[in-house]
Formats: sequence, C-alpha cells, structure tokens
Amino acid sequence: MFARDRSTLLEMKDRITTFLREYIGGTGYSRGVVGLSGGVDSALSYSLTCEALGAENAIGVIMPSSFSSRESLENAERIVKIYNGVKRIYDISPVVDSFSALLDAASVDEDSRIRLGNIQARTRMIILYNVASEVGGLVVGTGNKSELLAGYFTQYGDGGCSIEPLGDLYKTEVWELARLVGIPKEIIDRTPSAELWKNQTDESELGIQYQTLDEVLFLLIEKNHTPEEIEALGYGREKVDTIVELIEKSRFKRRTPPSPQLRRYNAQELL
Amino acid sequence: MFARDRSTLLEMKDRITTFLREYIGGTGYSRGVVGLSGGVDSALSYSLTCEALGAENAIGVIMPSSFSSRESLENAERIVKIYNGVKRIYDISPVVDSFSALLDAASVDEDSRIRLGNIQARTRMIILYNVASEVGGLVVGTGNKSELLAGYFTQYGDGGCSIEPLGDLYKTEVWELARLVGIPKEIIDRTPSAELWKNQTDESELGIQYQTLDEVLFLLIEKNHTPEEIEALGYGREKVDTIVELIEKSRFKRRTPPSPQLRRYNAQELL
Repeated sequence: MFARDRSTLLEMKDRITTFLREYIGGTGYSRGVVGLSGGVDSALSYSLTCEALGAENAIGVIMPSSFSSRESLENAERIVKIYNGVKRIYDISPVVDSFSALLDAASVDEDSRIRLGNIQARTRMIILYNVASEVGGLVVGTGNKSELLAGYFTQYGDGGCSIEPLGDLYKTEVWELARLVGIPKEIIDRTPSAELWKNQTDESELGIQYQTLDEVLFLLIEKNHTPEEIEALGYGREKVDTIVELIEKSRFKRRTPPSPQLRRYNAQELL
Repeated sequence: MFARDRSTLLEMKDRITTFLREYIGGTGYSRGVVGLSGGVDSALSYSLTCEALGAENAIGVIMPSSFSSRESLENAERIVKIYNGVKRIYDISPVVDSFSALLDAASVDEDSRIRLGNIQARTRMIILYNVASEVGGLVVGTGNKSELLAGYFTQYGDGGCSIEPLGDLYKTEVWELARLVGIPKEIIDRTPSAELWKNQTDESELGIQYQTLDEVLFLLIEKNHTPEEIEALGYGREKVDTIVELIEKSRFKRRTPPSPQLRRYNAQELL
C-alpha cells in the first residue's frame, strides 16, 4: 500500500532535510534541538536534523524519568554517538516530583496516570525550549503522521515544537526510512512506547496495531475513501469507525485555540 | 477608532459567552479553568466564563511565583470572590526552582531572564491542564488580540489553552468590556505586567504604548491599511514598521508546527 521503494524513500528524505534546512535557516537560527527518547521516531528525526544542519548543530537532549528503561537511555546515547552530535542529559525526576507534590498527582487510577504522563511530556517540552533558547535553535519535533492524526501525543507536550519533520510520514514509513538511513535494528524493532508509565505500549493504548492503523489512515486520508469503501476492502467496520473517531476527537490538538469572531465585517458563519 | 458604545460591547460580550458555552458544551465538558494573574485580561476571561458556564463551573486558578506582587494575588482572589466561583491556589516557586536547578537557569542576563519567564508561563500551563483534567473542563485562555498579534505571549505557556475567548478583542476593548461587566477599577487601572520578572511591564517590554499599538493594529488588520496609509494618518513610520515586524516575526507562534509535504499528489508548492 505504501510507496516504499528506495527511490521514493530517498526523495522523502531529501524533501525533509531540505525543509528542515530552509525553514530553520529562514528563522535566522542554525541549530536543531531534538528530544531523544531512545525510540525510532526521535532517532530518525535526529538523524535527519544532523544531515540537514550538520551534527555540530544537532543537539540531542536525553530526558529520562523514573519510567524510562535503561535500554531507552542507552539507545538515545547511542544515536548521538553514531552521528557525533551534541548531547545533553537532564533527569526530569526532580521536576516531575515537584509537580506531583504540588498537584497531589500520584498515579492511582487511569486518569491520574494520564495526568502524570502529560506532566512528563510537558516538562520535557519546557526543557527543550530552554535548551533551544540557550543554543540559538529551534525545537525539532518527533511526531509522525499516524500519531498526529490519531491524536496520540500530548498537546503542548511532545506536540509542542517548532517544526515537525516527520509530520507527513506514517509510522510504517518511519520504520522504513529509519532502516534506510541506518538507525540500529534494535531501535527500529523495539515495541513502540511513550514510557510515560510502567509497561505502556502505543499499540495497547491505541487499541490497534500500527499496521492496521496506517493502512486505514492511508485509505481515509491519501485515497479519500469512505468508511464504507474501506470496509468493502476487507477491514472490520468497527476498527475503521474507531480510527475515524480518533481523527475527529483529536482535531483540536492539531489547531490553534479558537476565538469567537467579533468583527462586524466577518460573518459569524466564518468561525 | 474602536466601536465602543455600550450596545456594541454588549453584543461582543454576548458572542463571547455564547461561543464559550457552545464550544465547551460541544466537547462534552462543562467546566472552564482560568489562570488568574490579578490582571484585567484574566479577570475578564474569568468573568465571562462565569457568565457562560455558571460560577460553580468556573475554576479560578491562582499561581503566584516569587515575582508576583501581593496586590496581584489579592486582586486574583477578589475576582473569584466577586463571582462566587471555585478557587484553587498553587505556589509555583518549588517547581520553578526545580527547573532552575536542573537547567542552571539563574536570571543573570536578559536572555536567561526571558528563559526563566518562559519556564514560569509554561509551568502554569501544565498546572492548568492538570486541573482541567481533574475537574473535567477546558483551559480557558486569557490572551487578547493585541498580545496575540504582537506575539506578546509564551508559546505553549499562556498561549497554551483550549479556547481564547478574548482572542478577537484588542487590549483597549478588554479595558472597556472589563469596565462594563464591573471588574473593579483598581484591577482595570493597574499597569499591565506579565510579572515574569521584577519591574516587568508590558509596554516597556513591547517598546510601545497599548493605545498606539491598538490603533495601528486596527488600521492594519481591520481596515487593511498599508503602512504608507497609516503613516499618512499621522503615525510615526518607525513605530508602524515595528508593529508590522512584531506581527510577522510572531506568526509561527500562532500556528501549528509545519511539516514538509511529502505526498505525490500534493504539490510541493502547496506547502
């Protein structure tokens, strides 16, 4: 379904690095700051930032919490080493603890677990922007098209960045492109997890496999198929409806907060 | 210049409260969470939230830091009391201190002062979203059209909210509407300040008076005048150019982070 021959992937890579270089250059800054989780998305985003700006301008920021596995930390460090980029490490635990103390945010049920996850994602955003201001750079995001469409990100957390280089790549394509640029196999093959709480995995939280998610998203978004047409292709209707709902329910996360339109010569209908 | 007769202001108020009620209702939530600084914008935003949702559904969150004046704190408390709404108080100092310790973010020069200001604004955003999740509500922003256009806000900080009820009101109109709804005179007449560092004031930081800013913005945005036409009306050209530059340089803050367009049937030009 996805166009994944080598030349298409190379063309995608070229467009992304060109965009990174031109957009960041256009702001007058020269550096890119990437939060490295040890996962494949941030590894690829960092790799492309290195290629676009030069490794000396690619700041890899590693921000472990008490939920980060040793393996994630090692993989994140490994990526900076491979590209010979600039590394920063900040343990976010003390900050998260101070939020928890202030907000009484213990992870006692699902809601509070999610809240504590959002605190972590947003704390990382704050650190990335602080580093970006310090070094004179932009915060380069790590969100892919599947996550962005499904709303599987924290608004103003990992969704808070200056540019999303992977924003038009489905997760399946992130894996493909990561393979192409030489991201280590162990990083590509790991079970995707935001590691915001113990034993969290993307697919269990989304309630759907990335393979299916991507296929249905591709048919909906790129092929403009209706749910009925997708069902006719053999996909379970319930699954398709779930994905349509994910897109709709997360629309607000992808938009600037709305304001009521008050000017007389702007029709109220134009809201 | 601004249309400020009583009936126009009442119509604006009505549109804002209707929008708040309908938008928040549409999400399935019933509450609004407003960060109260003690300033006029948040006082008005809170007042309108009370009117739209009922005071029992309007959570006023007061988040003093070491830079907040006693007067600000008192004014914020006063607002919740007037409307008989729900009050929460969180002293953000311990969280800001933990960020400072981690990031070595002492306020030693202008850049680090701004960074510390951004940490405070973003810490408040994290708290507001935590409260919103806890009570089942949306974060109601306090940004006005003048600030939003001039970029005088912290991206993912005070700019991070779910809805901006004052987003189409110029600062001058915020003052007018605040008077109309009965916000205490002492709050309306205070010198505007974000209180992110000692002796900060909006107008000294912007380098321009709100009166002038609003008049020029109105001519640029609502009247679609060119800088030349505005100069011909008697405004200093340098000032007009500064304002045009503020709008252009802050455009990125009002938008979702851009992604490179990769799909074949989307022309690269459509970026």
